[in-house]
Amino acid sequence: MGTGHTDPQRRERILTATLDHIADEGVAGVSHRKIATRAGVPLGSMTYHFHGIDELLHEAFTRFADHIVTVFEQHLSTADDTEQTRQAIVDLIHTIAEGPQRDLVLAQELYTLAARRPEYRELTRVWMSRSRDLLQQHFDTDTARQLDALIEGLTLHQALDTTPHNRDLTSEAVRRITTTA
Amino acid sequence: MGTGHTDPQRRERILTATLDHIADEGVAGVSHRKIATRAGVPLGSMTYHFHGIDELLHEAFTRFADHIVTVFEQHLSTADDTEQTRQAIVDLIHTIAEGPQRDLVLAQELYTLAARRPEYRELTRVWMSRSRDLLQQHFDTDTARQLDALIEGLTLHQALDTTPHNRDLTSEAVRRITTTA
Repeated sequence: MGTGHTDPQRRERILTATLDHIADEGVAGVSHRKIATRAGVPLGSMTYHFHGIDELLHEAFTRFADHIVTVFEQHLSTADDTEQTRQAIVDLIHTIAEGPQRDLVLAQELYTLAARRPEYRELTRVWMSRSRDLLQQHFDTDTARQLDALIEGLTLHQALDTTPHNRDLTSEAVRRITTTA
Repeated sequence: MGTGHTDPQRRERILTATLDHIADEGVAGVSHRKIATRAGVPLGSMTYHFHGIDELLHEAFTRFADHIVTVFEQHLSTADDTEQTRQAIVDLIHTIAEGPQRDLVLAQELYTLAARRPEYRELTRVWMSRSRDLLQQHFDTDTARQLDALIEGLTLHQALDTTPHNRDLTSEAVRRITTTA
């Protein structure tokens, strides 16, 4: 136990420090040394817990995706009928778009990584698959996929615009995309 | 003329080199020295043409946004009625999502920059405003805004998924979001 290698909190601290570092400075600057310093762990702890930078990034972003999927789950869990589900999705979009800048930056950092390096698209695929599974509890497969893309676009545009749209517009967009012929 | 300061192509070369560098290595690594080397111009040329890194990034990303807006324009210019416009938008989404990885990376780098530093959101605001103006030549203001977000989300999900959706799904999503009550 003296080395702390078996301390599960140490692994957690490293992952949190990695996400903090990415949110502040981006994926490009991540190194074992910088993250060890930020997490307050010895350098050897990094290589004990993670085989390399790719594994570290993979685990950190998986942790981040878990967090966002949980936000999805929390919003959708209380919805019983279609109207309530639509309203829950409108809440979800505005919660994420107007929420912590850290989450917005981390999502964009992950997308940028996956855009540049296709081997990271397994991460974005799994994330999309999990959010679509949640949406499929309320809508058919094709609608869930379209809705997932709409949520992405509305959240991003809402967050990056200087004159964000109001909830009525979000609500109308969600209604339209979930209205089948 | 001996210094090349008045050579308009030198400014162009610097902007192209900046976008190439961002596509390869990201915004974080941009420096006057690296870009001057890449563009094959003397270091003094950088400070002659651009007051600092922020101005350089601003001009380079404005140039990139011009390029994407032109792709929007080209797709929409030949559409006469609503059905043709919808089809043009489906083409647009698949053209961008399946197009050069460079464009995908650059868009994500800009979004990441704007997510991290709100002063860059004027760039994303202007870009969104230009694409919405084009869409408003075919749809009402609210529909154009919803459609712009849907295009964003579908393009991103299409590009970052390992099993992209087919054109029928894109077509159905565009039809739904442009169908008013």
